[in-house]
Amino acid sequence: MKAEMIFTGTELLLGQTLNTHAQYLGRNLSNLGIDVTLHTTVGDDWDRMALIFRQALERSDIIITTGGLGPTSDDLTKETVAEVLGLPMVLHEESLASIKQYFLVRNNKMPDSNIKQAYFPRGAEVLPNPCGTAPGAIIKTENNKIVIILPGPPWELEAIYENSVAPYLASLPVRGDVTRFTIFKLTGIREDNVQDLLSDLDGVSNPEIAYIARPGEVHVRVSAHAKTSAEADKLVKPLAEEIKKRLSPYIFATDDEKIELVVGDLLKKKGMTIAVAESCTAGLVESRLCDIAGCSNYLKGGVVCYSRMAKEKILGIDHQGLEKYGAVSEWAAVAMAESVRKLLDADLGLAVTGVAGPASSENKPIGLVYIALATPEGTQCRKYKMPGRRTAIRQGGVNASLKMVRHYLQGK
Amino acid sequence: MKAEMIFTGTELLLGQTLNTHAQYLGRNLSNLGIDVTLHTTVGDDWDRMALIFRQALERSDIIITTGGLGPTSDDLTKETVAEVLGLPMVLHEESLASIKQYFLVRNNKMPDSNIKQAYFPRGAEVLPNPCGTAPGAIIKTENNKIVIILPGPPWELEAIYENSVAPYLASLPVRGDVTRFTIFKLTGIREDNVQDLLSDLDGVSNPEIAYIARPGEVHVRVSAHAKTSAEADKLVKPLAEEIKKRLSPYIFATDDEKIELVVGDLLKKKGMTIAVAESCTAGLVESRLCDIAGCSNYLKGGVVCYSRMAKEKILGIDHQGLEKYGAVSEWAAVAMAESVRKLLDADLGLAVTGVAGPASSENKPIGLVYIALATPEGTQCRKYKMPGRRTAIRQGGVNASLKMVRHYLQGK
Repeated sequence: MKAEMIFTGTELLLGQTLNTHAQYLGRNLSNLGIDVTLHTTVGDDWDRMALIFRQALERSDIIITTGGLGPTSDDLTKETVAEVLGLPMVLHEESLASIKQYFLVRNNKMPDSNIKQAYFPRGAEVLPNPCGTAPGAIIKTENNKIVIILPGPPWELEAIYENSVAPYLASLPVRGDVTRFTIFKLTGIREDNVQDLLSDLDGVSNPEIAYIARPGEVHVRVSAHAKTSAEADKLVKPLAEEIKKRLSPYIFATDDEKIELVVGDLLKKKGMTIAVAESCTAGLVESRLCDIAGCSNYLKGGVVCYSRMAKEKILGIDHQGLEKYGAVSEWAAVAMAESVRKLLDADLGLAVTGVAGPASSENKPIGLVYIALATPEGTQCRKYKMPGRRTAIRQGGVNASLKMVRHYLQGK
Repeated sequence: MKAEMIFTGTELLLGQTLNTHAQYLGRNLSNLGIDVTLHTTVGDDWDRMALIFRQALERSDIIITTGGLGPTSDDLTKETVAEVLGLPMVLHEESLASIKQYFLVRNNKMPDSNIKQAYFPRGAEVLPNPCGTAPGAIIKTENNKIVIILPGPPWELEAIYENSVAPYLASLPVRGDVTRFTIFKLTGIREDNVQDLLSDLDGVSNPEIAYIARPGEVHVRVSAHAKTSAEADKLVKPLAEEIKKRLSPYIFATDDEKIELVVGDLLKKKGMTIAVAESCTAGLVESRLCDIAGCSNYLKGGVVCYSRMAKEKILGIDHQGLEKYGAVSEWAAVAMAESVRKLLDADLGLAVTGVAGPASSENKPIGLVYIALATPEGTQCRKYKMPGRRTAIRQGGVNASLKMVRHYLQGK
């Protein structure tokens, strides 16, 4: 079964917005064994969109469009699809009611312009949007083609995909090979060092190993293809297990795992709280923990002690010690972790201090990062030489510090 | 001048790799006034790539391809371009020498498969790759079309673009229309309310207004096309000025401006320092300020007082006051800003407190955010009703708080 995607939005062509739908949908469809053959991005331009949509109808079984479902005049997707398929636009009463409701619970009246969002090509199956005012739709054409219309904002698209599109696609008959993969996400190690550690396993095409470097992390992907998901999984598994064994000190997450969510769940399960003292990461660790709804159950807060003065004044860290060992030292990391734990009466105190660059400080090398975790059983500290530049070093500090908390809680 | 891009690589269709070229090239080309009309992503498939490339040659003046220049058999881009244009592949001796050199300095012998990377369609201008073994190329066709071939790895593509492609494109005589635009980035207002404020200006196609919603921000883009950049600018300017006048309380950045960089530059210029107290944003404001190298000149640090206890214990905020007014209140925001300013002996104290959801707290509505700025002249506070959900509310808090600092420093 051949699928293609049409992303609409001039902001994508102008580079104003990064297209994350391509990856999200590509990964999900290929996991279902659907062959994605083409992506096209078009601007908010009726004629060009109609042309691309007509071409897509000729060559693919499934066409997914994203964007262009907003209330404004440059939102054209449903109208273009209706025109090309020769369908009139009709009002979907349920959608209108739920859009009105969306505004009501926010103490607002629905602007007239939003009525447009409740109109769909006749015969469309409307897909409710739990996160916004633009429902999606599935249309089956006379020639048995499937057109799936999704909104542009990623959180809305992903919610509709998970609730409505994934179950629908999974119910379709599958043809062709299925690709399955596992991704290990590592931090605190360079890409070429990872390759060296796996060089004897590499060089085979099915299952295959691939390396992707990102700021502060290296991803190792093991993929395989076969007639069925089960067969592809059987090819991936032994190789993935061997890789996991070799790289385990560096792995902070696997596949789509969010480390901040894993850590949050572990803290909640164990009824423990955490406080954080950050120097070079300057709030990034705390803001990642706070990305998780309900974090107030375990996140007591923390201190961004970017200056030496903040370390002394808020955390009460000894001036002499900072002079002697420096603010980027095992001594300072341990003192920060223990102080913030005590200050906020938390079970765990986590601290990060390092040289993010571009200039070195205290005559210490760029990339040197100390991470300490104060626990009821004592304090551990680890020294890293993070590869890359400022952003990579800071992201590496975040990943490595959350990894330390994860390993501690999992070992408990 | 119309340009389109063809991204090649099955990993892009499978969602294994995020396509960052689309944004990088889109932004750079549109900054040069080149009109990017279409993106297509194809797999490593000769026939489909040839078809897309033929269509592109018919409709665009400039075609940029990425990927498919590696040494393996599924790297087909140059070969496909040569076949469609009817050009033979010829060896480029200089490239062969520099590929051999690339291996030599790494103590390796060049594998035979890499010889392929030194072959190009006849007449191509070869673009050296300072970061890898795949040079790029520029080909001018008989019909005056320009084909630019670039490798897939982002750092290689970006190096070749900057060294060779950007100067080349900038030197081209302008053909056809140039598109120019200005983007205003707003926070603390809903997309539909923005539209209402501009409804009498909208509905014209040149210059044109477009709206883009992002978590915590709304972008308003004013674009126009004309024969020259100067003429297009002349169309954009009066409309942009009117929009700026109407929306100015909500604008935190214009075009590619980074608000954290603007704020940092202003602080440095005025020799002032800042400290931050964050509740719902939980470190995001500080980490944004810290994205800028050299921030240690003005960022003293701060406190993430996610819990009420942290507000009382670190910032010394009055327990009775918190009980009476709540942690999400003008009273609390002002107290946080003034306390953190004093605690860290900074010129400015910035504070954010709000209800990020998903649950409401203190019986206050989700999206309620107070931002306060303590300055040598006194303390200001503003109340926001941020639209959207958790991520949007927190990002909105970051943008609005940096906006408050910017406006204060610019007014000084």
